[in-house]
Amino acid sequence: MTQARRGRFVTLEGGEGAGKSTQIRRLAARLAERGVAVVATREPGGSPRAEEIRAVILSGSARRLGPLAEALLFAAARADHLDVTIRPALARGAWVVCDRFFDSTRAYQGARGGVDASVLAALDRIVVGETRPDLTLVLDLPAELGLARAHARRGAAEPVDRFEAEDLAFHEALRRDFLAIAAAEPARCVVVDASGGEDEVAEAVWRAVESRLLAGETA
Amino acid sequence: MTQARRGRFVTLEGGEGAGKSTQIRRLAARLAERGVAVVATREPGGSPRAEEIRAVILSGSARRLGPLAEALLFAAARADHLDVTIRPALARGAWVVCDRFFDSTRAYQGARGGVDASVLAALDRIVVGETRPDLTLVLDLPAELGLARAHARRGAAEPVDRFEAEDLAFHEALRRDFLAIAAAEPARCVVVDASGGEDEVAEAVWRAVESRLLAGETA
Ligand SMILES: Nc1ncnc2c1ncn2[C@@H]1O[C@H](COP(=O)(O)OP(=O)(O)OP(=O)(O)O)[C@@H](O)[C@H]1O
Ligand SMILES: Nc1ncnc2c1ncn2[C@@H]1O[C@H](COP(=O)(O)OP(=O)(O)OP(=O)(O)O)[C@@H](O)[C@H]1O
Ligand SMILES: [Mg+2]
Ligand SMILES: [Mg+2]
Repeated sequence: MTQARRGRFVTLEGGEGAGKSTQIRRLAARLAERGVAVVATREPGGSPRAEEIRAVILSGSARRLGPLAEALLFAAARADHLDVTIRPALARGAWVVCDRFFDSTRAYQGARGGVDASVLAALDRIVVGETRPDLTLVLDLPAELGLARAHARRGAAEPVDRFEAEDLAFHEALRRDFLAIAAAEPARCVVVDASGGEDEVAEAVWRAVESRLLAGETA
Repeated sequence: MTQARRGRFVTLEGGEGAGKSTQIRRLAARLAERGVAVVATREPGGSPRAEEIRAVILSGSARRLGPLAEALLFAAARADHLDVTIRPALARGAWVVCDRFFDSTRAYQGARGGVDASVLAALDRIVVGETRPDLTLVLDLPAELGLARAHARRGAAEPVDRFEAEDLAFHEALRRDFLAIAAAEPARCVVVDASGGEDEVAEAVWRAVESRLLAGETA
């Protein structure tokens, strides 16, 4: 290919402790090794102003925003992230690999929070427009395993209490939400088994990227 | 009237220094004198979380958000403000008088910022829904006069410089935007001449409230 082309936009999705942040780093490194210019970023956040909005979203658990206001804050952060970070990178031909994107809004604020899918779709049309991911990798694993990983990362090792048990049902539902999203958009989404070791998952991620985005390219 | 009824929702709009905050206080006091339960509030803000979002919107002038992200932040703040402050007050029969509401978003982010009217209308459907103002008072005065009032409030008295001259054209356009909004929705909006003294404007505001909302009521 000789003409300048837009880079590719890859998002990683999945529940807590699925390995998104770990695999974003692995994927970015592997693309860079291959000579691909790559920007690794995350949501909410990914631009200075979006990080400020992230702080508002994540602060004040005592005074929780409702899911609609939360979805709108994510949309505001996403609009800035797209303008400042994602679109300019894609325009100069870089790949963007992003830790969570609109599917997390659909799962958390939509399916879990009760915000209408039609409302979230309207926000996506407004905010995301044409800049939809070329590929979304849904890292899938049993909710218990993801929570255990996140738990271990925090360095704690207490037994599961009532609150964590409630949490588990929530996270199991979330897992089903992400699988439903992937099933509804098979051209964009690939479900990756994330229950194996880090290297094994990295291989599965790479295979998906190769087959969906690199096959047929002369690199 | 014997059945419990929803309170009335009144918004005050207009450019800087038009007298919105002054007249909100006057109107709230006059309604209270008349025995009406009244909640005076403002946008952006009006609830603890919305005030946090206000701080994000108003901070960081060096790193300005684009008008779309700004409109989405206003929408998020508005969703919380409606849920936490406005709807509960109206439901218990109180009147809500609000210093700026969605018309300011239309004027600043829409007409001035370039965000499509259809996008803002979609956000209003999502966020405001049925809770549209019963009456909107557009405080109208020459932009120069409003800026001079705001200027005097700041306690400064320098001559108008190039930047303020640019500002003036912006504020004149804003004045036309608010008049256009009022003209497009005459059943909801009343334009009030705000160029007179405080008492005079308060009388004009009260006449509009009486004729639009109190006429025919036994109070
Ligand atoms: N395949 C794996 N096997 C075992 N542990 C893993 C694996 N991948 C990541 N981990 C570890 O599990 C923890 C969670 O991983 P990571 O932070 O990448 O998940 P995440 O999906 O980004 O989580 P969050 O949603 O909380 O951000 C980390 O301590 C990480 O080192
Ligand atoms: N009718 C009036 N005549 C003269 N001065 C007035 C009048 N109404 C208000 N002021 C003064 O003008 C200044 C601006 O008024 P106010 O703060 O009520 O305007 P505002 O529309 O709320 O402005 P902003 O958009 O900046 O919040 C204040 O110092 C106020 O005391
Ligand atoms: Mg992570
Ligand atoms: Mg004011």
